Amino acid sequence: MKNVYIIGVGLIGGSIAIDVKKLNPEIMIYGIDKNESHLNEALSLKIIDHKANFEDIEKADLVIVSIPVDTTESLLPHILDNVSDETLVIDSGSTKASICKVVENHPKRRNFLATHPIAGTEFSGPKAAIEGLFKNKTNIICEIEKTAFKLQERALTIFKIMGMNLRYMNPEAHDKHIAYVSHLSHISAFMLGKTVIEKEKNERDIFDLAGSGFASTVRLAKSSPYMWTPIFKQNKTNVIETLDEYINNLTKFKELMETDNFESIFNEMENTNHIKEILNGID
Amino acid sequence: MKNVYIIGVGLIGGSIAIDVKKLNPEIMIYGIDKNESHLNEALSLKIIDHKANFEDIEKADLVIVSIPVDTTESLLPHILDNVSDETLVIDSGSTKASICKVVENHPKRRNFLATHPIAGTEFSGPKAAIEGLFKNKTNIICEIEKTAFKLQERALTIFKIMGMNLRYMNPEAHDKHIAYVSHLSHISAFMLGKTVIEKEKNERDIFDLAGSGFASTVRLAKSSPYMWTPIFKQNKTNVIETLDEYINNLTKFKELMETDNFESIFNEMENTNHIKEILNGID
Repeated sequence: MKNVYIIGVGLIGGSIAIDVKKLNPEIMIYGIDKNESHLNEALSLKIIDHKANFEDIEKADLVIVSIPVDTTESLLPHILDNVSDETLVIDSGSTKASICKVVENHPKRRNFLATHPIAGTEFSGPKAAIEGLFKNKTNIICEIEKTAFKLQERALTIFKIMGMNLRYMNPEAHDKHIAYVSHLSHISAFMLGKTVIEKEKNERDIFDLAGSGFASTVRLAKSSPYMWTPIFKQNKTNVIETLDEYINNLTKFKELMETDNFESIFNEMENTNHIKEILNGID
Repeated sequence: MKNVYIIGVGLIGGSIAIDVKKLNPEIMIYGIDKNESHLNEALSLKIIDHKANFEDIEKADLVIVSIPVDTTESLLPHILDNVSDETLVIDSGSTKASICKVVENHPKRRNFLATHPIAGTEFSGPKAAIEGLFKNKTNIICEIEKTAFKLQERALTIFKIMGMNLRYMNPEAHDKHIAYVSHLSHISAFMLGKTVIEKEKNERDIFDLAGSGFASTVRLAKSSPYMWTPIFKQNKTNVIETLDEYINNLTKFKELMETDNFESIFNEMENTNHIKEILNGID
C-alpha cells in the first residue's frame, strides 16, 4: 500500500490519515476536499502530504470517504467508477443502508467496504483530527462478504493496527441500533440546548448556574449540522421511532410528576441506574 | 472556628469537609449520618475526625447540611433549635424555596444561610468525596440579608478560600433557573437511558455500538434517586414547565422530520450550535 486518498479531511478522515501515516511513514497521503481552506489547513498540519483532485484517485491503493452521508451516497458510484481494480474504497458514515443500496449493483461493488467507526468528538474540520482516535473503539462493518477477499484482508489489517474492535452487522440492523445509541442522543442534546437557550432570552444569566452535568448532557449539541442533517434524513424512519419512544417516556415521567406519584419517579430512576454497569468501559 | 459538623457525609458534605480541614487542620470535623456504614467509611477515609450524634451539634461553630432536600426541609428547624446563638448552619440543597420557607419564621433564622454549590459528579457516598470539588464553581446564595452579619462573613470567608464564585438570588428565581440548567438535564438523561435500555431487551448487543457521545449524554442517569426524587417533588411546578417545553421542542423536531423539512432541521441545529460559546469555561 503506497497511495492513500482521503476524501474529506475533517475530524474522521484526518484522524484516519494520521493513524495510517504513523503505521507506515512511507505511505503518501493525498487529500481531496471541496473546502479549499480545509485542504490547506490539513496540509500545513501535515495531516496530508499532498493536495489532490478527484481525477487522481485512479492511482489510489486505498480511498477513505469521510464526508456527509448524502454526499457519500451521490459520490460513491463515481468514486468506484474512477478507481482501479486493486483499489479498496472505505466509507465511514453514520448510516449504512442507503450507502450500501446505492452501490449494490455497481460493477466495482467488490472494491468497496462499508464501515462505521464509532469514534469522534463534537468538533469538526482538520484541526479536530487527533492521533489514536480509534484505539479501542468499535468499528461496525457491513456486508463484508460483498468485498473482494484480498481487499477485506487489507482493510482488517489496517483496522487491527489502529486498535479497533470489529463488529459485523447488516446495514439495516446497523441503522436501527445506531438510531438509539447515537442519533437519538444528538437530538436529545440539541433540543435540551434549544430549550435552555430559548429560556435565556427572557431570563438572563441562566448559564451562570450551569455546571458540568449540564455541559455533559448538552455536549453533542455542538455537533455540525452539515454532518447531522443528512444522517437524520437517511435514517428518518428509525430516528422517528426512537424519538417517539423517548417523547413517550418523557411524557409519562411528566404525568407521574403531575399526579404526585413520586414512588414511581423513584423507581424509574433506580431502574435506569443500571446504565452504570452498561457504560463501564465506554466513557 | 473549631468544631465543624457535617450532617450527611456524602459527595457534597464529604468534599466540603475535605476542603475545610485543609484550610485549617486544627478544625475538628464531626460526621453525622443515619447511614452507619457511610459514617465508618468517612472515618476510615479521614474525611471526618469523629462520628457524632444529632444532640452534639450545640457545640458546633459550623453545621453543613448536605442530605436529600426533603430531609433538610424536615430536619432544618430542629437543627436550628439545637445549635448555639453563634453557630452558622449552611445547607447545600438543589432547591431553595421550600427550604427557606420552612425556617422563615424560626427564631434562629439568622443562624442559617441557604446555598447551592453548583458542583458534583454522578457518584454518591463518602467515597465520591474529592478535594477541590468546588474550586472555580458557582455557589448560589439565597436571602443573605436574613443571615446574621457576622455569620454571613464567616460563610463568605470559607467559600472564598474554597475558590467559589458567589451569585446572589432569591429562592424562587433560583428554583426556576436551576430547573432548566440542572433538573431538566437529569430527566433528559434518565429518560434517554430508559429508552435505550428498554430497546436492548429485544435488541441485544445494542450497547456494543455506544460511543463516548452517548456516554456523555446519558451520564447523569447514574445519579442517585434518593437525592433526585425529593428535588423533583420540591421543584415540581418549575420542572414540569421545563419538561413541557422540552417535549414540545422534541415533538416539533419530529414533525419536521416527518414532513421532510430538513432545511428547518438544519437551522434548528445550527441555531443551537451557539451553545459552544455558552459552555466555554463550564466544561
